[in-house]
Amino acid sequence: MSDSFAQIASSLAATARGFHLRGWVLGTSGNLSAVVDREPLRLAMSPSGVDKGALLAEQILMIDEQARVVSDHRARASDESPLHIRIVTERGAGAVLHTHSIWSTMLSDTYADDGGLAIEGYEMLKGLEGVTTHEHSEWLPILENSQDMRALADSVADTLRQHKDAHGFLLRRHGLYTWGNDLAQAKRHVEILEFLLEAVGRANSMTKKQ
Amino acid sequence: MSDSFAQIASSLAATARGFHLRGWVLGTSGNLSAVVDREPLRLAMSPSGVDKGALLAEQILMIDEQARVVSDHRARASDESPLHIRIVTERGAGAVLHTHSIWSTMLSDTYADDGGLAIEGYEMLKGLEGVTTHEHSEWLPILENSQDMRALADSVADTLRQHKDAHGFLLRRHGLYTWGNDLAQAKRHVEILEFLLEAVGRANSMTKKQ
Amino acid sequence: MSDSFAQIASSLAATARGFHLRGWVLGTSGNLSAVVDREPLRLAMSPSGVDKGALLAEQILMIDEQARVVSDHRARASDESPLHIRIVTERGAGAVLHTHSIWSTMLSDTYADDGGLAIEGYEMLKGLEGVTTHEHSEWLPILENSQDMRALADSVADTLRQHKDAHGFLLRRHGLYTWGNDLAQAKRHVEILEFLLEAVGRANSMTKKQ
Amino acid sequence: MSDSFAQIASSLAATARGFHLRGWVLGTSGNLSAVVDREPLRLAMSPSGVDKGALLAEQILMIDEQARVVSDHRARASDESPLHIRIVTERGAGAVLHTHSIWSTMLSDTYADDGGLAIEGYEMLKGLEGVTTHEHSEWLPILENSQDMRALADSVADTLRQHKDAHGFLLRRHGLYTWGNDLAQAKRHVEILEFLLEAVGRANSMTKKQ
Repeated sequence: MSDSFAQIASSLAATARGFHLRGWVLGTSGNLSAVVDREPLRLAMSPSGVDKGALLAEQILMIDEQARVVSDHRARASDESPLHIRIVTERGAGAVLHTHSIWSTMLSDTYADDGGLAIEGYEMLKGLEGVTTHEHSEWLPILENSQDMRALADSVADTLRQHKDAHGFLLRRHGLYTWGNDLAQAKRHVEILEFLLEAVGRANSMTKKQ
Repeated sequence: MSDSFAQIASSLAATARGFHLRGWVLGTSGNLSAVVDREPLRLAMSPSGVDKGALLAEQILMIDEQARVVSDHRARASDESPLHIRIVTERGAGAVLHTHSIWSTMLSDTYADDGGLAIEGYEMLKGLEGVTTHEHSEWLPILENSQDMRALADSVADTLRQHKDAHGFLLRRHGLYTWGNDLAQAKRHVEILEFLLEAVGRANSMTKKQ
Repeated sequence: MSDSFAQIASSLAATARGFHLRGWVLGTSGNLSAVVDREPLRLAMSPSGVDKGALLAEQILMIDEQARVVSDHRARASDESPLHIRIVTERGAGAVLHTHSIWSTMLSDTYADDGGLAIEGYEMLKGLEGVTTHEHSEWLPILENSQDMRALADSVADTLRQHKDAHGFLLRRHGLYTWGNDLAQAKRHVEILEFLLEAVGRANSMTKKQ
Repeated sequence: MSDSFAQIASSLAATARGFHLRGWVLGTSGNLSAVVDREPLRLAMSPSGVDKGALLAEQILMIDEQARVVSDHRARASDESPLHIRIVTERGAGAVLHTHSIWSTMLSDTYADDGGLAIEGYEMLKGLEGVTTHEHSEWLPILENSQDMRALADSVADTLRQHKDAHGFLLRRHGLYTWGNDLAQAKRHVEILEFLLEAVGRANSMTKKQ
């Protein structure tokens, strides 16, 4: 493992363990990736079927643009690697993070018929890349889930082209995908979007007394 | 303690402490077991009445197929050991985990009259053994609770035979039972089912504004 | 500090830090005590106004039956020490724990007009001293809060005599008081009652779809 | 770094990491400050855009009364530094803390048209400076959010003069500001107000069965 890959692997594993503590990647769900090289494309990717609460740096795989494992690991890369690759390609992202939280899962269902939901007016939106004011309307597209990973990757690419300003999207009854220029920014985006989804979800049930 | 038992005991204790952090085994509730040997049957079993937030490997007992403590401990095995033994026998499970979470407790009541609840369409279902698509309907049976452990064990055996594909069941106003080929899989099943129960529970109260 | 006091102080401090993590004793609220001696009465007591998330063994005070600090500390004992002393006297308790959780605070208000609430049918009730079946009805009395500590202590004593089987009580818009033969049992009682209060509180808002 | 600044920086960073664990400063949101000197004014201030879950003492900046960084750091001070400075000036506060929690964000919206909300009758209120009884009505003003920091600072100053007894205020769809004579008291105020906001928020949705 090169120094750079070792550092990235360590950060990815730590990020995964932190997400697991919050209940965002329970039961081996979710996946995390970060770009190691662009030409040729090399991604550090979380392995399939591993408890993310105990994920270690040495378990992080390196995959190529065909999602094949090119590092010296016998593990299988995440099934959703093609989605990560497609997002890296379309957006030039430096890291892609996918969580399965309660609120993202629920709102992906509640707003599925609208094809997405708009989140507006929250100061928290300012932490999203390029957003400088709370008077911003963030459209979070919702895609139907699918086990056909090729079709889903195409659907993701379409969505990213249609919504060039989107910072993430939801897969119905599945979870949240977001990304960033680097892992730190991607992590920030996860925290912000998960926060906003919970705020919107809870606000839908809020009333006011007196 | 043999190496194998020591390792199993350590993992069981760590799993218990993790569940306690999440609030899934508060107040000495819940129990955890893992198969050490099959012929004769020997299970590593959590002791009765111990704070699972402080559970140590050396406190894990070894019991036989009659739920008698055969290790050198003066503690009492969990009262629910017969249920663990029955599940290991019926399903060939390698580990059985029983949690007392808020959401499993509440939904076990809400859906008791239906004898169970169906959980469908969630990507999270794919983490359950043998499930390969989110387009899966998981039936989680609900059994009436009882202090007659022999009758309850028979009831559990009946349920397991009637629902050969079930990955778990609920005891009314009591909690969740699930299992796996090994402790890692059982733990994954707990996390997935607890997540899904919370998702279903919260979805029942969700509305949509605008 | 004698060995026994040192051990009790260490356990009390650890219990406090654990409760703080769960959000049960935020903002220096709550108090914890354990009996060190009975004749004369000596209690280990948490100090007033200290962040329980950072409470250390050396900060635990020793008080007498008049709630006067008899250890070599310049800190003030909790204002509610008289309540702890009264419970120890009335019930022969070995430890008394008082938490300020969201759910205990809310239910203490919801059911105040009834003077208490009944919690029934939950397996979790079996962790309460003397309770052997889930088919148990636990009456949790609710007392009006007061800043007159002498009057409140009398009110507590009355309640304990009227409800000899009660394992705890709520102070309206204040929190939960419970106790045990020793700190381990008191801690178990806190976890069980806090769990049950959340279960009842959430069940009140639960609906069922389909 | 002087000893005093080093100690303050260490406490600020630890406080930030604790708030991040609770989900109160996710996605680099929120800011924390503490007075190091008054003549001239020197504040220890959290840097802009840093993950507060990993904030270290050496990252804490020192700023002057113009919010300029006067310590040897290349980082940028929080955009909201002028608000901290204004609160320190108006109230003589020794520390100012700003969190972005779910409940403060939601209630800041629910009660915005009323210009604030009254929180009464909770024992938890006694932890607020100068409050000696639960029979206290705490008015928490709500200000409209703005990206014009100068205007917002003036608005904050007006609010503080109009509500001399207020222990904090909310910025709409933004979060909570509170302060204290020192960091320990400010932290206590955050915990108390966050607790009360959650209690009020959940109470609005509570019903009672039977």
